[in-house]
Amino acid sequence: MSLCDLTIGFDADDTLWHSEVYFERVHERYRELLVHYHDAATVNRTLFATEMRNLPLYGYGAKGFTLSAIETAVELTQGKISAEEIRQLIVRGQEMLAQPVELLDGVAETLAELAGAYRLLVITKGDLHHQERKLARSGIAAYFRHVEIVSEKDEGTYAAIWRRRGIEARRFLIVGNSLKSDIVPVLALGGAGVHVPYHLTWAAEQVKKTPEAGADFFQIEILRELPAVVRTWAAGRTS
Amino acid sequence: MSLCDLTIGFDADDTLWHSEVYFERVHERYRELLVHYHDAATVNRTLFATEMRNLPLYGYGAKGFTLSAIETAVELTQGKISAEEIRQLIVRGQEMLAQPVELLDGVAETLAELAGAYRLLVITKGDLHHQERKLARSGIAAYFRHVEIVSEKDEGTYAAIWRRRGIEARRFLIVGNSLKSDIVPVLALGGAGVHVPYHLTWAAEQVKKTPEAGADFFQIEILRELPAVVRTWAAGRTS
Repeated sequence: MSLCDLTIGFDADDTLWHSEVYFERVHERYRELLVHYHDAATVNRTLFATEMRNLPLYGYGAKGFTLSAIETAVELTQGKISAEEIRQLIVRGQEMLAQPVELLDGVAETLAELAGAYRLLVITKGDLHHQERKLARSGIAAYFRHVEIVSEKDEGTYAAIWRRRGIEARRFLIVGNSLKSDIVPVLALGGAGVHVPYHLTWAAEQVKKTPEAGADFFQIEILRELPAVVRTWAAGRTS
Repeated sequence: MSLCDLTIGFDADDTLWHSEVYFERVHERYRELLVHYHDAATVNRTLFATEMRNLPLYGYGAKGFTLSAIETAVELTQGKISAEEIRQLIVRGQEMLAQPVELLDGVAETLAELAGAYRLLVITKGDLHHQERKLARSGIAAYFRHVEIVSEKDEGTYAAIWRRRGIEARRFLIVGNSLKSDIVPVLALGGAGVHVPYHLTWAAEQVKKTPEAGADFFQIEILRELPAVVRTWAAGRTS
């Protein structure tokens, strides 16, 4: 059986390119804006609560984040925030959307090495328009056979992608920084996963328990370590 | 050749269900909010200019619209708009996103009639999360073989969908309310189109010239007239 029958799915934000670091920068400036009203912990907690409350309506992404940040700022200042300060929040959101794509270390060469032997997919959640723009500007789009932009990453999402693309669970490996969205659902369906932690994790992506390392679950520090892990996994699949 | 080889693509917003009417209601309340600062024409013109300027960053949909409305309100009031008024704009946006799906007249029975004989697709642009939610709540999702949610509707978009789904141009009919996004690109690629005007058209969707009626282009008043038009079109394709 050929290696080409093996598929590697890549998460995008914080796996292929930086993302959370831009949210964190906006969070910092947001806390500075509200420092005269509330301490940082209160600001963080209230903003996160607004984001979670709005998630069923807004979905993931920078536009919904910006709207939740404005809503929270009005609430936390009891309406005292100025229109000019709100305008600044809108500009911060636009800067996030316009941010050039900055690949993580080793991404381009790792994809180049794997693309010849495996079918590579991107599976990313969030804002359709923003994710398409990022991929188009990333310089790495050509390495991927398909791009799946989805509104949520759960077992149903992965199962639907596998059906659509003719992928078997045990011939699929996911690579991502989020245990919750990337690794756990794929392992639960019988696929394999490689966790590459990013130095920041959004609270909504945190999980209490890391899966145990084994034949189907690997952890690496940086994407450059991926080809060696893939060879180990592939050897178990083709033997 | 079987009728099942013929594909009918449906636009969603203002073709299957109401959408622009909710934007128009928000526009009305928006003009009322700003009536002490500017006349309605200035408000409309400035908001539209902001929306068009932000479109490359925001894409289509209610979240980007809300952000552009807030930005425009700050600009048009020279920062005098209150935080409470901005909060109201956010609530209007949330109401648009939470709006129950209201099918246009005749949609459900028309789809039921066509779904047995043709492959039906939805091709809709805009916010991934919002469009998925609307389709899930519409009660008509089961009639469609595939759902394509795209960030723009141009010739490249339709050509990519046809490649992906194995569709030939001359065996494809698009049904939609927008000449610009639904009809013109499909006709240009050699497909056929049925225009079903909605009583409101967003300025960005307006075109100067309507295609001439002919063997590939049809106009109807209401979706109930579609099956008869489809039979005429299909007869030309299967003979």
